[in-house]
Formats: sequence, C-alpha cells, structure tokens
Amino acid sequence: MVVHCFLVSKNGQKNQAKDHYFMMISTLHRMGIPGNCCYQAMQMLWLSTQEKFWLLRMVKLFTRRPASVQRALSVLEMEVEQIHKGNHEHYMQKEIHEQPESLTTTMRGRLIRGGTCKAKTVLLGGLKDHLKTIRRSWRIVFIGCGTSYNAALAARPILEKLSGILVTMEIASDLLDRQGPMYREDTAVFVSQSGETADTLHALEYALQNAALCVGITNTVGSAIARKTHCGVHINAGAEIGVASTKAYTSQIVVMAMLALAIGGDAISNQARREAIIDCLFDLPNKVRDMLKLDQEMKDLAKLLIAEQSLLMFGRGYNYATALERSLKVKEVALMHSEGILAGEMKHGPLALVDESLPIVVIATRDACFSKQQSVIQQLHARKGRLIVMCSSGDATAVSRQKYSGSAKTWHKGSLKCQKLQKVHLSATFQKKWIT
Amino acid sequence: MVVHCFLVSKNGQKNQAKDHYFMMISTLHRMGIPGNCCYQAMQMLWLSTQEKFWLLRMVKLFTRRPASVQRALSVLEMEVEQIHKGNHEHYMQKEIHEQPESLTTTMRGRLIRGGTCKAKTVLLGGLKDHLKTIRRSWRIVFIGCGTSYNAALAARPILEKLSGILVTMEIASDLLDRQGPMYREDTAVFVSQSGETADTLHALEYALQNAALCVGITNTVGSAIARKTHCGVHINAGAEIGVASTKAYTSQIVVMAMLALAIGGDAISNQARREAIIDCLFDLPNKVRDMLKLDQEMKDLAKLLIAEQSLLMFGRGYNYATALERSLKVKEVALMHSEGILAGEMKHGPLALVDESLPIVVIATRDACFSKQQSVIQQLHARKGRLIVMCSSGDATAVSRQKYSGSAKTWHKGSLKCQKLQKVHLSATFQKKWIT
Repeated sequence: MVVHCFLVSKNGQKNQAKDHYFMMISTLHRMGIPGNCCYQAMQMLWLSTQEKFWLLRMVKLFTRRPASVQRALSVLEMEVEQIHKGNHEHYMQKEIHEQPESLTTTMRGRLIRGGTCKAKTVLLGGLKDHLKTIRRSWRIVFIGCGTSYNAALAARPILEKLSGILVTMEIASDLLDRQGPMYREDTAVFVSQSGETADTLHALEYALQNAALCVGITNTVGSAIARKTHCGVHINAGAEIGVASTKAYTSQIVVMAMLALAIGGDAISNQARREAIIDCLFDLPNKVRDMLKLDQEMKDLAKLLIAEQSLLMFGRGYNYATALERSLKVKEVALMHSEGILAGEMKHGPLALVDESLPIVVIATRDACFSKQQSVIQQLHARKGRLIVMCSSGDATAVSRQKYSGSAKTWHKGSLKCQKLQKVHLSATFQKKWIT
Repeated sequence: MVVHCFLVSKNGQKNQAKDHYFMMISTLHRMGIPGNCCYQAMQMLWLSTQEKFWLLRMVKLFTRRPASVQRALSVLEMEVEQIHKGNHEHYMQKEIHEQPESLTTTMRGRLIRGGTCKAKTVLLGGLKDHLKTIRRSWRIVFIGCGTSYNAALAARPILEKLSGILVTMEIASDLLDRQGPMYREDTAVFVSQSGETADTLHALEYALQNAALCVGITNTVGSAIARKTHCGVHINAGAEIGVASTKAYTSQIVVMAMLALAIGGDAISNQARREAIIDCLFDLPNKVRDMLKLDQEMKDLAKLLIAEQSLLMFGRGYNYATALERSLKVKEVALMHSEGILAGEMKHGPLALVDESLPIVVIATRDACFSKQQSVIQQLHARKGRLIVMCSSGDATAVSRQKYSGSAKTWHKGSLKCQKLQKVHLSATFQKKWIT
C-alpha cells in the first residue's frame, strides 16, 4: 500500500514527509488505522481515508536531553465534515463563516438563562473550585503570544470592570526576557489556541516556579497547557486548519468574557450589567451571522486595497485589540505591512505618516470612546487622509456629519473628498455589545 | 516697530500668527521685551532679538468654561547659545549631538561616587522625602505617551529588578479610555517631556482622584505636571527645539534608571550591581560620544533606505523600547512606515512579511537576550530577509558566523547574500550597559 504523506507546517509550507513520519504511519497501521494522506499542523497529525478521519496528537515527551525528544501518539476521532471545505474556497474562509456555530459551541452549557434557576449566571466547570482563590488574588495577569495576546487584550477592560482586580498583560516572550516579577498572590491566565505554544509553555513553567495560580484557556483538549495548569477553560471552537487564527480569536474573547462574569459573579452592584452582558452574549452568534453577510462588500473593499503597500489601523478602548489583531491578520494573510495603533497615540507620531495615498482604517463603533474617535476621524480628515471608517449600522451620518460640520454640502454631493471616505457599516461588532 | 511673528506647532507646520499672539507680543513690549521673532512649540513662546533671547511659557489657566481659557505668561531667560544651531544643519541634528552634554547635566549632582562618603549612591532631591512611601507601594505604574512611554518601557526592567516591586505600563489615553483600576497603594510615575501633554495631565488628575502617589518626570520646570504631582525629578536635558524628541528620550531613561537605583537603594543584595550601574552611567556620555562618531556611516546607511516604503525594527529585552522609539522617529522624521516589533513575537505573524526587499533592522547587543536574537537573525536569514543588524562592537562575527554556520565561505567571499547584511557596529548602546 502506498502512503502519501505531507507535512504542512504552521507557516503554510508543504513538504514531503520525512522518514520518521512514515514510521509513524506504519505505527498507525499497526493500530489498525489505514492512512493515505497525512497533514501536520502544529503538533497535530491528520490522517484521512475516504470513509473516516483521525486526528492524531503528537505529545512531546521532554526528556533531560533535548535531542532525544520522544513523541507519544493519542488518537482523537473527528467527523469528516469538520475538515471538509464545503462550498468555501479555502479553510480560512470556512472558519470565518463558522463563527456563529463556534461561538454557540463555546457558550453551550456555560451561559445559563432562565429555567428553574431564575438568575442569569455563568457556569465554568473547570474553574468553579478555584473561583474563590482567583477572586482573592492580588492581580490577574494574562500571558499569551500573537492572536491569543490580542484576544486577552480585548477581554481585559471587561475583566477589570467586573472584578475590580488589577489586570496586567504580558507577551510570553517578553515576560521571559525580563524575568518579570510574579507572586504567589497572582493568578496567571495562559491563553493559547494550540495549548502548545513554546513561549507560553515556558512562561507557564516560570509562573509555576513562582507559585502563581495558573489558569489555562486553550482550544486543544489534553494539550501541554491544559495538562500543566491548575485549572482552565476549553474554548471548544473546533479544529482550525487555516494558518491564521479566526474563529479561535472570537471564541477566546467570549471565554474570557465568561471568565470575567464568573469572577465578578459575587458582586451585587454589577448584577444588572452582568445580566445585560449575558443577554448580549446569547445574541452574539446572530449578530455575527448578520455581519458575515457583508462578505461581498468586504471583497469590494479589498479590491481597492489590493495594490497598497501599507495600511494603518486605528482603534481605542475595546477596539484597540481589534486593530492589533486585524493588522496581524493582514500581515499574515495579505502579506501587506499593516500596523495597529492606539488611536490616542495618533498625535504622538503616527499622524506624520498620514497623506492622500496611505489607506487608514478607523474603528468607531458606538461605545464609550465614540466621541473621541469622531475627533480622530476629524483630525485625519484635516490631513486629507484616505479613510475607511468601520462604524455601527446607522452611524454613517454621525461619523460623516461630525467631519463635515463646516461643509455638509460637499459631503452630500459626493465630491472627490467624499470618495476618499469609504464607509463600511458593520451591523454590530460584538465588542460593542460589552460596553454600557 | 514691525513684529514678525510665526507659530510653529508640534507637527512642524509654520503658520502666520493669529491676532491674540500679536496681542501677547504687545503685552511683552509693555513688559520691556522688544520682540522681532516669535516661535511657539508646545506651550512655549520663543522670542529673540539680536542681543537677547527670552523663553516665554504660556500656562493655561483652565476655567470652568473651556472657551474662556486664560493664559498667564512667565518669562524664563536663556542663553542665546542654547538655541543657536551652530554648525549643524537643523535643530534635531544639534540635539542628537548634544546628548553627551545633556546626559552629563541630567546626572550632575545626582550620582555620587567616592568623595568623603565612600558608597556610590544616587541623590534625587525631589524624591528623598517620598522614597520610603514608594518602596512600600503595591506597584509602580508608568504613565506616558509616545516617546515618554517608550522611555519608561526601556527603564521598566531595571526598576523591576532593583526594586522587586511590580511595575506596569500604561499609555495615558488607554488608561483613560478603560478607566483602569488605580489604588491608594500605587505609585504612578508620569513621564512627559513638556510636562503639559494633555492625556498625561488627564491621567494625572485621574490618579489623584484615586489617591495614588504621583511622581512626575519632566523636562520643563514649572510645567503643569511638575506642579500637580506630589514629587518628581526634572530631567534637565535643556530646551528641545526639534520636532522629534531625541536628547530628552535618553535623559528620561537615565532619570528613570536613577529612580530605580534610589528605590532599590536599601537592598544589600543588589549593592554590587547598583555600583556597577552607577559606574556605567558615569561612563555613558563618553560611550554616546563614541557612538555619535558613526554619523557618516549612518548617513551611508540612510541612503540605502531612502527609497523604501516600509521598515521593520526587531528588538527584545531592553531593546524592545529602542525598536519602538526608533520606528516612531522614522515615522515622524522620515515619513516612512516603520514598525517596532518585539522579536519574540516574530514567528506569530510578522515573519510572513519577510522577503528579499523589505529592510529589517535587528538589534542584537551583547546582553541576556543575545543568543535569542542570534536565532532570530538566523530565522530571518533563512527567509532571505534584507537585514541590518545593530550589534556591539566586535560582535560582527558572532552575529554572522552563527548565521553562516553551514556556508562560512560564502560569507567571507562577499557574495550577493552577504551584501544583504549591512552591519552597523555600535560601539555600545547604553541600554547594553545595564544588563548583567
């Protein structure tokens, strides 16, 4: 029997498999799994036949000598539909469109509304024994890399507001470089999609040495972070095959919002606010579904930007993380140099870059920072910036009128100036829903 | 008498003065100051005649109605030499070359070595009554914008190590957007060159409301931050006329290093380390003087990059802040899209951008992160990145050998590959000196 075996590394390169993977395939055969195609992404091996599909996790067994890394195999069975692209052009597109379902799965059984118990609450099984300890902790420190860090950054304000505990952010590699202080009274939350990110794992070991309470948030059951932390939450977003993380990002934010609700669940003063957030979370998959209908508008917008070399993204408040994450995605997928910048920092340097050619995306959803973002848009427009404003549905005039207060006519006549402002109406980004 | 009056705003635009500034000039005339030229940068008015030069600070007096802002004038006399460009082409160049002197002024009378008292210590007059309170505080939070934030980020690891206190970072506008937690046990350090930065001032008011101990670090005697904080340190870097902050950045870092020495001054375990740092600080102006001799090499390097659209800067540890600050300067002055990225985050997205055309600056000084940076250089080179490595003097081979382990010959023969690596030998960046 011929075994076709490919390795797909995280950066999307496809290589012919090395011998030891063939050996693994033969091991699989001994396990009764007939393989004809095998992919590896992260520490996963995917193996499929026409009838069945296996996901094989290779668990690294670290021994004292790094050269002699041993790998154990565990078999997770999956449905074939989970990895079929269906009508989508590529996996990333499929995963973007799976978000309403993945968010529902993330919240299933965890958000409780009505029923016998009248109060709307959050139940995180993996955390319930440790909630008291977390509430008494000195600070909560989010530790992650790349997209996971951005997700934690998006969830930070809600956790700060609901828990009243100091929340700090650490990029895992920076924490290790600095050997930053970590105390026994700290709760360290490790966020990682794969649960195997090297830097996050090392930071976990560092936190364990410093006796902090370690909480894991991963998408992979049985991963290293899931095994080594004291407690944690699985995001249950389903397997991500696309190189860039999409549905895991939104599910991570939702899990951390639920974490905030659980930690802050003891305060009466926030009861109404918590219930409002729970209602919004229930409504979130529908909002996302509505937003995904903008697919064609997004494609049209992308055509305008395809030849560009650079892109700036301005966001603030909850949407600072959105700006960072989107610019990371543009970097990874469009290979265009894009940078997410805190809108408040605009006048301390980045404003110098603004001219008629550089496209600038500004997020101005209807939240506590809306008026500040309006003034940012005004300043960018005074510099004749080429703006793409992402605002809540119905806010097009609020964003434009503000800007054209002196020359409302120019705007309505669709002059050259106006064409520079391409507006995208997002019916509601979910970040918006978390803000009073 | 004709009064020529110009306003130079912070972003470098020159506008004909408005009427009320003429009124001010007339006020000056009543004060006995004959004016023929007047510049405004930040909240400063500069007025010079052929014989004499006046610096006039306009202090905003906020009244309840923002429309009726009143300004009081105070006159600071300065030497004419302080604002003469001398042989330099522009003020920024002058200020870059003034750094050995500005650093000496910053440290004068504050670093004590030898003499009657044998111990090497730091004496910060403005802080000495509050040092005990700061040492007992729960955390130290640095708050600033733009360059000042970057300076604080550069000083963060040394403060963490010497004080053992938790040190967190806040961009002033982000803190205000989030209304982040601030406690009575916190020490908030406000860093601002002008002492009048609007966001930093608002954050100061927020911190005062929350009863935190407020420490100011500014370059401007009598500025709003200097007046409103409980205690503080002036950086004494001298007036900065250039739009982009240069010498103030280095002086801010030195002041915060001295702050770290003062706060950590009570621990015997760090005595040897503190003395080593003090010795290095004394030596710093000479190191900077040596480095400034690379002016011509830098110009040659700049010629290679002048036509580029984008630039990435990778740094880690102490040099993460250097990467951020440099990319901000390139944005402000060269109007080129440059981005400072933590080298540890490279593989979580930015690596996708690397190709043969995009210039990438990597800082790899001989410090605790050197071997990690070597591996970053290796990875970037595997992607055929166009590298510019900034390393300590004598490290050229250490950086290159590592990279060309498999093809040492190629390197020595100066092939096409090698030409892509333009090395700049910095005799010693001062950040390097702080690392064990």
